[in-house]
Amino acid sequence: MSQKEETKKEETKKEETKKEETKQEEKKEETKKQDLVTPYEIKAVSETGIDYDKLVDRFGASMINEEMIEKLTEIATKKGIKLHHWIRRGLYFCHHDLHRIIIDYEQGKPFFLYTGRGPSGQMHLGHLVSFILTKHFQDIFGCAVVVQMTDDEKYLWNRKFTQLQIHKFLMDNIKDIISVGFDPEKTFIFSDYQYIKEMYPNITKVQRAITFSQVKGTFGFTNSNNIGQVAFPAIQIVPCFSSTFPKIFENFPKSKSKKSRGFNCLIPCAIDQAPYFRQAREIAYRIKEKKPSLIYAKFFPALQGHKTKMSSSKQTTAIYLTDKPNQIKNKINKHAFSGGGRTKEEHEKFGADLTVDVPYAYLKVFLEDDELLEEIRVKYGNGTMGTVQVKRTLIETLQKIVKKHQETKAQVTDETVELFMTPRALKFD
Amino acid sequence: MSQKEETKKEETKKEETKKEETKQEEKKEETKKQDLVTPYEIKAVSETGIDYDKLVDRFGASMINEEMIEKLTEIATKKGIKLHHWIRRGLYFCHHDLHRIIIDYEQGKPFFLYTGRGPSGQMHLGHLVSFILTKHFQDIFGCAVVVQMTDDEKYLWNRKFTQLQIHKFLMDNIKDIISVGFDPEKTFIFSDYQYIKEMYPNITKVQRAITFSQVKGTFGFTNSNNIGQVAFPAIQIVPCFSSTFPKIFENFPKSKSKKSRGFNCLIPCAIDQAPYFRQAREIAYRIKEKKPSLIYAKFFPALQGHKTKMSSSKQTTAIYLTDKPNQIKNKINKHAFSGGGRTKEEHEKFGADLTVDVPYAYLKVFLEDDELLEEIRVKYGNGTMGTVQVKRTLIETLQKIVKKHQETKAQVTDETVELFMTPRALKFD
Repeated sequence: MSQKEETKKEETKKEETKKEETKQEEKKEETKKQDLVTPYEIKAVSETGIDYDKLVDRFGASMINEEMIEKLTEIATKKGIKLHHWIRRGLYFCHHDLHRIIIDYEQGKPFFLYTGRGPSGQMHLGHLVSFILTKHFQDIFGCAVVVQMTDDEKYLWNRKFTQLQIHKFLMDNIKDIISVGFDPEKTFIFSDYQYIKEMYPNITKVQRAITFSQVKGTFGFTNSNNIGQVAFPAIQIVPCFSSTFPKIFENFPKSKSKKSRGFNCLIPCAIDQAPYFRQAREIAYRIKEKKPSLIYAKFFPALQGHKTKMSSSKQTTAIYLTDKPNQIKNKINKHAFSGGGRTKEEHEKFGADLTVDVPYAYLKVFLEDDELLEEIRVKYGNGTMGTVQVKRTLIETLQKIVKKHQETKAQVTDETVELFMTPRALKFD
Repeated sequence: MSQKEETKKEETKKEETKKEETKQEEKKEETKKQDLVTPYEIKAVSETGIDYDKLVDRFGASMINEEMIEKLTEIATKKGIKLHHWIRRGLYFCHHDLHRIIIDYEQGKPFFLYTGRGPSGQMHLGHLVSFILTKHFQDIFGCAVVVQMTDDEKYLWNRKFTQLQIHKFLMDNIKDIISVGFDPEKTFIFSDYQYIKEMYPNITKVQRAITFSQVKGTFGFTNSNNIGQVAFPAIQIVPCFSSTFPKIFENFPKSKSKKSRGFNCLIPCAIDQAPYFRQAREIAYRIKEKKPSLIYAKFFPALQGHKTKMSSSKQTTAIYLTDKPNQIKNKINKHAFSGGGRTKEEHEKFGADLTVDVPYAYLKVFLEDDELLEEIRVKYGNGTMGTVQVKRTLIETLQKIVKKHQETKAQVTDETVELFMTPRALKFD
């Protein structure tokens, strides 16, 4: 090569490097502007919270459309049940392959629901959301439910906890979950420490199909993550494959498909859990399993505002299922971020900003009465209803829900817990 | 900052970067010159095999000295047993804290032995080494033995295998291991798939204490390793902590130490397994467990030479426990790398190079007769004995050992296997 050619080559190379650097810089800037949504951290860029439209695009999900809501309403109505307002009001807003479940239902094919929780402390209202919806789906579809309690996950992520402490949270949380009203003949609740042996063949199958590079990208892991955390995604993934529960689904008709084993699974969860199940969908066919279907909820915001979600470690960010009526009242009055005007005059003039108002957001979730909610939306929004009255309505609503929950939970015995946790063949209609 | 200062700063920075690069380059060169020894790959730089002196330094182990051999001989003699020639002849050549076990023995304190195998195919002679030594130690110390079968590891590392295939290897290999002669009242053999639940609390404890960075350094993992492989070291580590076997060691006296739980463990293994247990020793105190003691064997070379070890996947590199007399004869005659002279004249003049000769290396391991071995060393070394005669002696020796093994194995029933694998309280004298 002549010297000239070499110089030219070097220059081209330099230019390419520069271009690559600029590209990466742009990508970084882009990422900065994006909402951060992983199972371990959530941070919205805007005061109004997560930009869900963008998220749906990024995650390759589909919005739940009118047609789908009509279909679900039809199914629910046949069972004499009103479709849950969380679907009607868009708290559950997007999905992956939800139509497959509806088709299975209409064709009388078996499928099951899967949800779960990491027991790291007392449960708050936000934690109940996916359980309440799962129970609602159990009612309208009459199907089986498996609930994974990721006690191992909580141990791997929290150095301050011993396994014994987490076990205490586990047993307490399961009573909260049972209180939601699951059918004991059709529901299996298991903890990872207790059910690991049955899951382990599928866990290693999933682990073998995922590299460190992949979890680095999908979950934001770094070299400083411990090796249990790195391998954990496989453990949350396996319950979405029916082959993980041979005994539990013993009475279910066998599928004859050669392409994939078992039958479909629908996972109701908050959108921050999407990385696990997008990963599951990516590898499913490779290990001859069915891709799980999902229905995703928006976050239930912290009392302090839409930028983050309720946290089980920060007492003042959430309404706990153990809170007394007075605590609920004080927390809402003190901490619930208001979108109302700063002064009475301002409020009457401009009304409340409902896009950032937390009491209104909570009412949208917990006030079943559609008409009252609409009244609040209009009047609070135009300033003819004040923050005090909205907060009072919310306080009363939540006090009632929490009280009822506590009464139900008090009836759940250790024997009932054992019944739900015993590996056994679930009923199939 | 003035422009001059800035330029100066930049120059210093450039220099530092250059220095760093040179350093890394040097380190790379250094690594190239080192023998590669991980559980997944072994490659010696020299024809004479691994440089064990350097390895002992690198791994922070100690050579087994005369004093230690005398002590062990004394213990063995009291039981009417001759100390195994593998220790006398230096096949087991170095250790970590072996003296602790000897002290425990003399003080009547409990301790146990731990060894294992990954069932990826038929076993060959090299695979028997650590089991034979462990059995010998069980005889002289009268202590308990746990044997881990890492069926999960073999699945995670071999895409070509199904779990069912590995399970077949597992059940067959366990019969080989039992044939070595372990005491059924003092030996527990377990497979990871079967015993995972009991191990899982300790597995997550160990996983929480090790980062991806650490396994990257210790095991040479990269971003392309699957996440099961990344987390696996914890699974091979936990059996060295007695707390992993509460039921198995139920009859053993409890330790009262506040610093660490349970009692000591001695692991006889080949030096390629050292990374696992160096990692175990590093984290033991942090999770309040005792550091395991180790005794390391040199590699048993492949028939083709000292540069690598026998492989269960390359039929011609090893003598299998299933080989027929004729196969043994043919393999040694055809494939065993000879250090003898190229011509008769050359051999008679210079003798054989015993440092690279494979038949002699095998005889050192399998010929119990010390006098005959010494005769071969002298005569083969000075050229008055030929390769043919040495190979013939080896063939006869191995044919006898393999035949005896096959006869013993034929007597091992499925019931015996089940007995060894049943979690149960082992006997403590």
